[in-house]
Amino acid sequence: MGSAGSFIGNFEKPPVMEKLIVIKIGGNIIDDEIKLSSFLKNFSSIEGKKILVHGGGKLATKLAEKMEVKQTLVDGRRITDAETLRIVTMVYAGYINKNIVAQLQSLGNNAIGLSGADGNAILAHKRNHPTIDYGFAGDIDAVNSEFIADLLEKNMTIVFAPITHDNKGQLLNTNADTIAQEVAKALTVNYETTLIYSFEKAGVLLDVEDDNSLIKKLDWQYYQQLKPSPSGVGGKIFAGMIPKLDNAFTALKSGVKKVIIGKAEHLDSLIAGMAGTTIVNE
Amino acid sequence: MGSAGSFIGNFEKPPVMEKLIVIKIGGNIIDDEIKLSSFLKNFSSIEGKKILVHGGGKLATKLAEKMEVKQTLVDGRRITDAETLRIVTMVYAGYINKNIVAQLQSLGNNAIGLSGADGNAILAHKRNHPTIDYGFAGDIDAVNSEFIADLLEKNMTIVFAPITHDNKGQLLNTNADTIAQEVAKALTVNYETTLIYSFEKAGVLLDVEDDNSLIKKLDWQYYQQLKPSPSGVGGKIFAGMIPKLDNAFTALKSGVKKVIIGKAEHLDSLIAGMAGTTIVNE
Repeated sequence: MGSAGSFIGNFEKPPVMEKLIVIKIGGNIIDDEIKLSSFLKNFSSIEGKKILVHGGGKLATKLAEKMEVKQTLVDGRRITDAETLRIVTMVYAGYINKNIVAQLQSLGNNAIGLSGADGNAILAHKRNHPTIDYGFAGDIDAVNSEFIADLLEKNMTIVFAPITHDNKGQLLNTNADTIAQEVAKALTVNYETTLIYSFEKAGVLLDVEDDNSLIKKLDWQYYQQLKPSPSGVGGKIFAGMIPKLDNAFTALKSGVKKVIIGKAEHLDSLIAGMAGTTIVNE
Repeated sequence: MGSAGSFIGNFEKPPVMEKLIVIKIGGNIIDDEIKLSSFLKNFSSIEGKKILVHGGGKLATKLAEKMEVKQTLVDGRRITDAETLRIVTMVYAGYINKNIVAQLQSLGNNAIGLSGADGNAILAHKRNHPTIDYGFAGDIDAVNSEFIADLLEKNMTIVFAPITHDNKGQLLNTNADTIAQEVAKALTVNYETTLIYSFEKAGVLLDVEDDNSLIKKLDWQYYQQLKPSPSGVGGKIFAGMIPKLDNAFTALKSGVKKVIIGKAEHLDSLIAGMAGTTIVNE
């Protein structure tokens, strides 16, 4: 992997690791056929190893409405009952995942779509919460980096749907931001890994309505100042960003080289570090 | 692959090829949770290389009804319009495929679920018919045996959903019997391949209502006597069996070693050649 160098050279410095980019795309891009197609065109032109993790979008909610499956939300989180799990498995691992894979194939990327059950790629357990039953929501235990790296070494582009399994036959609905983070972390053994959270905003904003209020660089200390108190009071950062940012800092602490958050339309600039918010662990 | 033998031994006879079993399961088993689970238990205990191809079952039809998507049938074949394609992609490649994969994982099989788009496993084109527009129905052009064999060599169990792609970004609804046949055929390069069509009947029957009327061995000549005339007149074999049997004979002519048709519940006996109808090419 990476540069060859002389035998003596290898003693002087560690071998250069090949790069891997893990990109999460948010629901708003998935819901918009034209935006998604344009994103995939940009994504397909990225050279080297890459993994795409997609979320759900509104299609699952719409399907649930059509099927008259009631959606229960607790603290803004959807409760995954058995019917909802069936719907998200169909929409995420079926419709969205396979359409992205087919589009990437047409763009010359040899893509493969995976849920966490496929090749035991992502093992999880049903969320255990003292007071709330989240239903079939999965918290990740292990990422099969050997299997994933093996596909990457065959120059395949991996597309993850946010569905995992518990190795007891149960599929689990799992947060896509967390999947991206856990996959990026696990692959640091094999690659110099960059994690990109791409969505509809320019990055982390001081004013969620104003793309000009972009924070270009966010370190841990600054984050502590900006985020709400544990009880949820105050804070300058939009509450919806907090889990994403917690994921970002966890990734950096675990060896992910770079984390960038920004607009999906500016993918090239995000990768080049010319746009979005760069999360820095210092 | 297979037995080692001495250097001279290799000159005397060709090396023994490893065995591969390709099994298609029909809709009636998929629709029945208990039957499916029992089938998967039997399937998981098969030693060696294996591929499972599943059809659709009634779930897609039920979902279409619930979503008020009208199903058009021409000559008993469903026309795959855009809405129907969306539904079968969700149900086949999402719900059914991932649930089978998760169950096989729990049974100790390292399963991976694929559509034809994944890894460009099965390339097809939109059916071209002089008078009927079948919509997004796919006819197979190529099977990526290298990719499939590579997963098998890692001791993975492959589970195919009956969805393919055209490499131009279009997913296509594709007959699962044909997928099983084409995959079995393509893999004869790497393996000594057996193809098994398992469903709710004991095999090919002279009287479709009577499992005791089983034909144990069906060769090409006998098949010509039993099947209806090209105009559909006469014939002792149930019309629904004809495409399956045509697929079976095509497979044998293309190097598949054995084709057996029989009851899913008797999987072990089918593999052992102790049950079902053995199709013979002579």
